[in-house]
Amino acid sequence: MEKHELVIVGGSAGGIQAAMCAQKHHGLKDVVVIRPEVKAMVPCGIPYIYGTLGGVDKNILPDKLLGEAKLIVDEVVSIDRKRKAVTLRSGDVVGYNKLILAMGSNPVQPPIPGIDKKNVWLVKKHPDYLQELASAMDHAHHIVVIGGGFIGVEFADECRKRGHEVTIVELLEHCLQLVCTQELCIRAEDALKQRGVKVVTSNAVKSIGGNDKVEFIELKSGDEIKCDLVIIGIGVVPNTKLAEESGLEIGPTRGIKVDEYQRAIGSDIFAVGDCAEKYSFFNSEPVPVRLASVATREAKIAAANLYLPQWRNIGTVGVFSTVIGKTAIAVAGLTDTQAQKLGYDIVTGEAEAASKHPGTMPDADPMRVRLTFDRRSGKMLGGCACCTMTAGEVGNIMAAAIVNGMTMEQVALFPMGTHPWLTASPLAYQITDAASNAIHKTKKG
Amino acid sequence: MEKHELVIVGGSAGGIQAAMCAQKHHGLKDVVVIRPEVKAMVPCGIPYIYGTLGGVDKNILPDKLLGEAKLIVDEVVSIDRKRKAVTLRSGDVVGYNKLILAMGSNPVQPPIPGIDKKNVWLVKKHPDYLQELASAMDHAHHIVVIGGGFIGVEFADECRKRGHEVTIVELLEHCLQLVCTQELCIRAEDALKQRGVKVVTSNAVKSIGGNDKVEFIELKSGDEIKCDLVIIGIGVVPNTKLAEESGLEIGPTRGIKVDEYQRAIGSDIFAVGDCAEKYSFFNSEPVPVRLASVATREAKIAAANLYLPQWRNIGTVGVFSTVIGKTAIAVAGLTDTQAQKLGYDIVTGEAEAASKHPGTMPDADPMRVRLTFDRRSGKMLGGCACCTMTAGEVGNIMAAAIVNGMTMEQVALFPMGTHPWLTASPLAYQITDAASNAIHKTKKG
Repeated sequence: MEKHELVIVGGSAGGIQAAMCAQKHHGLKDVVVIRPEVKAMVPCGIPYIYGTLGGVDKNILPDKLLGEAKLIVDEVVSIDRKRKAVTLRSGDVVGYNKLILAMGSNPVQPPIPGIDKKNVWLVKKHPDYLQELASAMDHAHHIVVIGGGFIGVEFADECRKRGHEVTIVELLEHCLQLVCTQELCIRAEDALKQRGVKVVTSNAVKSIGGNDKVEFIELKSGDEIKCDLVIIGIGVVPNTKLAEESGLEIGPTRGIKVDEYQRAIGSDIFAVGDCAEKYSFFNSEPVPVRLASVATREAKIAAANLYLPQWRNIGTVGVFSTVIGKTAIAVAGLTDTQAQKLGYDIVTGEAEAASKHPGTMPDADPMRVRLTFDRRSGKMLGGCACCTMTAGEVGNIMAAAIVNGMTMEQVALFPMGTHPWLTASPLAYQITDAASNAIHKTKKG
Repeated sequence: MEKHELVIVGGSAGGIQAAMCAQKHHGLKDVVVIRPEVKAMVPCGIPYIYGTLGGVDKNILPDKLLGEAKLIVDEVVSIDRKRKAVTLRSGDVVGYNKLILAMGSNPVQPPIPGIDKKNVWLVKKHPDYLQELASAMDHAHHIVVIGGGFIGVEFADECRKRGHEVTIVELLEHCLQLVCTQELCIRAEDALKQRGVKVVTSNAVKSIGGNDKVEFIELKSGDEIKCDLVIIGIGVVPNTKLAEESGLEIGPTRGIKVDEYQRAIGSDIFAVGDCAEKYSFFNSEPVPVRLASVATREAKIAAANLYLPQWRNIGTVGVFSTVIGKTAIAVAGLTDTQAQKLGYDIVTGEAEAASKHPGTMPDADPMRVRLTFDRRSGKMLGGCACCTMTAGEVGNIMAAAIVNGMTMEQVALFPMGTHPWLTASPLAYQITDAASNAIHKTKKG
């Protein structure tokens, strides 16, 4: 049995980041990454394969990031924790001194009658599967996207870029409802409609109809939508089969339970990314947030802690962003609903101003920021920004304010820099002004 | 004598922000703003009048921001602190209960022989003067910009957009040298050259030649540059004449000395913006940083403290950004040189990656981040980012890290959000990776 210092199971964002950091942090030379795919997909790039990028081959995670780590393309079928070894599909057994699990997640497959019909697709992270989807799309006219979360809205937008008729079907009242305020959801839906996407909300898919191949979907409302291709993007479920079989504990959101050092509870194994349970930054309770940016952070923590607990995970803040057409949206931390559920008495503040200044600068579009604070401590709990292309980094400024426990006053006096081409005016910078707005509301309240 | 609750002297960014905040914060109804200009310029927008905006009228600070505050267009000629009144050029006397000084700054006029020749211009914030400059430019062929700071490089870039031949002359070894690392300075100069600007550094202007009108400049090196228009942008000097005459103390960088509540020392008068002394966030020593974004922050603080000390100024961090062509540059906090001068033992980290991900996304350009930390405490002291259009907000993320005293480790584990259109990859996010790079250097060191 060959034995390695560090074995990483899974070679997507989390696995690759763990391999990179183990080498940089500890100078490890003997690192092995095992994954079933020859090539790994950039996970958040998958929707963009279909319109923007123009091919699966444009969305590959470069394996040069692995450095000197060895890549084994095979599937791990079992973990023997006593022997400290994993068995591969090929029959090979690979021993380890340290083990990091980064097996990711699989798309949720809802129990909709007819889901097994031809041309009903999930969003699997396998290049071959995704390539087949691309070929199938070439012959499709009307595409239905089931699920109005980030992946759903991004797929819908990209399918429009290819010229398809597109309908998005969302169970809840609004697309993006789980992570966005209602106002933002409506803006996103407006952007989708402007892009020519039909948006159906507060409705479920009762069945997928057709003979061999999908021909229509039947909604709970009784309506039918004719279509020849269906993409289902309603979430993911952690890939924990191996972990469960080897006796590791699974948490309430179905991830491998880990401590703040990313160690699987009661073991000397580390787990990171989608396959690991996440805990809220705000109250340390499990939260079902699965993002590549969270996976890479956890991978860095696990790699640093291999030989000694060094870095703690402060918990998951939840920082999301997306783009529909030219409408970019970012959210960080808790929504009002989430904050209230945790028991916070919230106060919110809003501000809107041109994204450049003066407002006569070319491409100066209105940019809106909304912030949510805890009335008692004054601390920032969440925020959202739309709709210009700096929203992603503006979301990260909000994330910085949240993790540092900045109060309304501190955010209102945040010493931002401004520039005509790059930001709002210093007289109308949205983040500081939204905090000021919250302060003024508190006084009146 | 008419008497008002709050009188603000100066109606540019600082004055207008103070008027806005006094109304919002205290519900004040009786606020008067006195300024000599009928219209106030957006200060940072001034260079953009000449290429991008196409006119002085496109760069006006909207007076609707004043809300219910009354605007008096006149010049304050003296302050009577005992009587609590200001006298105007018209002879009118206006009494106040509270007074905020926001008189701004004037351009430095260097003692160069020939500076009084026709077609030698300073960057004054007066619409009429700036309009005359625009008209003069219409007849100019070769423009020399004296001074390679932000205002100089922005003017040079804008003049190129109008089709002029442009030469920039900088005294120091590099343009932007006072606030940027050498690498960034070189990038900025490369961008200028790519835009067709001739860059002359380590050279001073000995005299401005010509008969009535400028015809050439003579350099210290002996070279002569033929030109028919000169713009001088070598810095500003606080406008403190009124304050000095009324007995207020002036600090070493020539601003009105203020305490952390923006109160002029030993008085009940507030001073904000370019006319007020600034103190470093890092050591509370005076620093010559004059920016509209600093002015508006100080104005918010002064307005909040009118009746009771409420908000403290944490000091000036120094967050700058600029754009040359498509090259955006942002800096926050201390440069290495500044940090070392203060006695810090510094460690730096760098990272470069595509601004979007995967790198095959349209317009994914390389974006570089460099961070500077204090080796002893691990705290972040400064950072710079270039060269894509999100740099301004990335500079603000760095500012958030600095003011919150985030350490290398905290920055390396910063829970950023990422998105293909909006940011670098979660595997290569520049800010977190630059911090990791610094950590790895510390270990080797």
